[in-house]
Amino acid sequence: MNEFDWIRSIAPKSHHRSSVIQGIGDDAAVFRPRCGWDMVTAVDSFSEGVHFTRETMPLDAIGYKLLAANVSDLAAMGAVPLYYLVSAAIPAEGWELSELDPVYAGMKRLGDACSMDLIGGDTISTGNGLVLTVTVIGRVEQDCSLLRSSAKPGDVLFLTGPVGLAAAGLNRLLTHGRSVWGDDPDIQAHQYPVPHVAYGRLFAESGLRVAVNDVSDGIAHEAEEIAEASGAAVTIIREQLPETGLNAERAELENWMLRGGEDFVLIGTASRADFRHLQETCCLQKLPLYAIGYVEAGEAHVFMERNGKRERLTGGGYSHF
Amino acid sequence: MNEFDWIRSIAPKSHHRSSVIQGIGDDAAVFRPRCGWDMVTAVDSFSEGVHFTRETMPLDAIGYKLLAANVSDLAAMGAVPLYYLVSAAIPAEGWELSELDPVYAGMKRLGDACSMDLIGGDTISTGNGLVLTVTVIGRVEQDCSLLRSSAKPGDVLFLTGPVGLAAAGLNRLLTHGRSVWGDDPDIQAHQYPVPHVAYGRLFAESGLRVAVNDVSDGIAHEAEEIAEASGAAVTIIREQLPETGLNAERAELENWMLRGGEDFVLIGTASRADFRHLQETCCLQKLPLYAIGYVEAGEAHVFMERNGKRERLTGGGYSHF
Repeated sequence: MNEFDWIRSIAPKSHHRSSVIQGIGDDAAVFRPRCGWDMVTAVDSFSEGVHFTRETMPLDAIGYKLLAANVSDLAAMGAVPLYYLVSAAIPAEGWELSELDPVYAGMKRLGDACSMDLIGGDTISTGNGLVLTVTVIGRVEQDCSLLRSSAKPGDVLFLTGPVGLAAAGLNRLLTHGRSVWGDDPDIQAHQYPVPHVAYGRLFAESGLRVAVNDVSDGIAHEAEEIAEASGAAVTIIREQLPETGLNAERAELENWMLRGGEDFVLIGTASRADFRHLQETCCLQKLPLYAIGYVEAGEAHVFMERNGKRERLTGGGYSHF
Repeated sequence: MNEFDWIRSIAPKSHHRSSVIQGIGDDAAVFRPRCGWDMVTAVDSFSEGVHFTRETMPLDAIGYKLLAANVSDLAAMGAVPLYYLVSAAIPAEGWELSELDPVYAGMKRLGDACSMDLIGGDTISTGNGLVLTVTVIGRVEQDCSLLRSSAKPGDVLFLTGPVGLAAAGLNRLLTHGRSVWGDDPDIQAHQYPVPHVAYGRLFAESGLRVAVNDVSDGIAHEAEEIAEASGAAVTIIREQLPETGLNAERAELENWMLRGGEDFVLIGTASRADFRHLQETCCLQKLPLYAIGYVEAGEAHVFMERNGKRERLTGGGYSHF
């Protein structure tokens, strides 16, 4: 099967979204936006050896997780996911075109769950190591996108789920490889993270001022981004971080929770009154929402409070260089 | 400079398009579509050693040309280019982050010329060889996109410019490397191709039925795509192909013209009457339009007519695998 036949084989035969005017099969894709909505777009790449190895990730999980990371960015803006495009740079050795089928199937599984359509892509050859790039496009009601710059002193800092599980799973996968693949929550959290689209939509639809980031790089870093974009100080209260059920040394557990990343839950802030309202609305949909700290006037730093004592946290975040 | 600082350094400080609500600096970008228009999007990747080497391409040309290849896809749909996103997978060895500055500057040069805004991206590390992926987004009047499936028997086949120059340039670059860098038309055609946005807009604004492909893979292949998508036979008349001014053996020249690719002109079809109208309109804007063949009922094959004799052409097109 050559490249052109393979592209035909992965091109969807029908679309979830009637707004797709032209999908795969022309020079570019065409879709019809809905009046009164803004479009939201993001791009993320995964490279073999850096984001995954064949020991840490089943083939379908590679595709699933890359799309999940992108959809999580849409969720963090409050957007409805709509479409995605995939570019694959495939090494001359070590990968068969047919091995990409499960990778694309993993993307399709999440895409279908979100009623997203694959509308474009590119496949090229490269020297060494698979590089996959996904672009996602979604929509959000005009002026309702959840910007990280909108936090204000007095806000509650919240999380939409526990953090640290994905890092704990990666830690076990790097040590034990495929032998630990399976249903354990930390392994699932690393391989098949669930983007929190429902939360994002609920926040955007509320029309309230909600500052949101997705937790791709660890909450210390994400909180720092909110602090810097909003020009305020953010404090995380250690005792209020939701339990993960993980069994580990205190320091290691805390490192995973604060700097682990790739949990793809949302971290955000809202005024005290709005937070109570959001928590009740979330509760009705069986979506827990955890208050984990607060925002106050001051330099754009992040602090951690533990046993009533406060120290400054430096964000970190994974730098590729 | 770490990754986060570098991203800040390349993020635009202002935008050409007032429709950009949120550019680089949040989880995703937000833009406001215009009612009554469709959105058009495409993605293309370049990888080192396959699409370019440091001998064939100056750093700024790498960025310029990748964006040009994408913009050419928008042009082939009749779209106005608006935004682009860039993902860079940077090898641990052989590339400094600072060397990406000219690459991004090359993109910015074309982006500025098209009033396009860089609104998102990702930078990751990879094992070996730079891989760059660009996603472009544009808009076209509703139901006016130029689909390759709309050719009909009786149509004129046309080109918006000569083909073969880019392949001739590549041929010299592969043999002589940097010593032939400069202003020669074939070298410029390979390194700094000009996407034919003005033609695409003129065709889309005409409201006429115009089938269009951009010439990324050689006209034999592009004509085959039109033939297959439209279910008709397409004939290229050898004597009507526009002159390139190239000096080469007949067989070599013809190979470059038919299969060379990367010229990024547009190939298309329109009814005889519409073609005359389009040619006049193009002429007023000093944009030459060349009739190079015809469409007729029959199997979806491509033929070449030379001295009144006709033979079947097989498309080819560069398959990466």
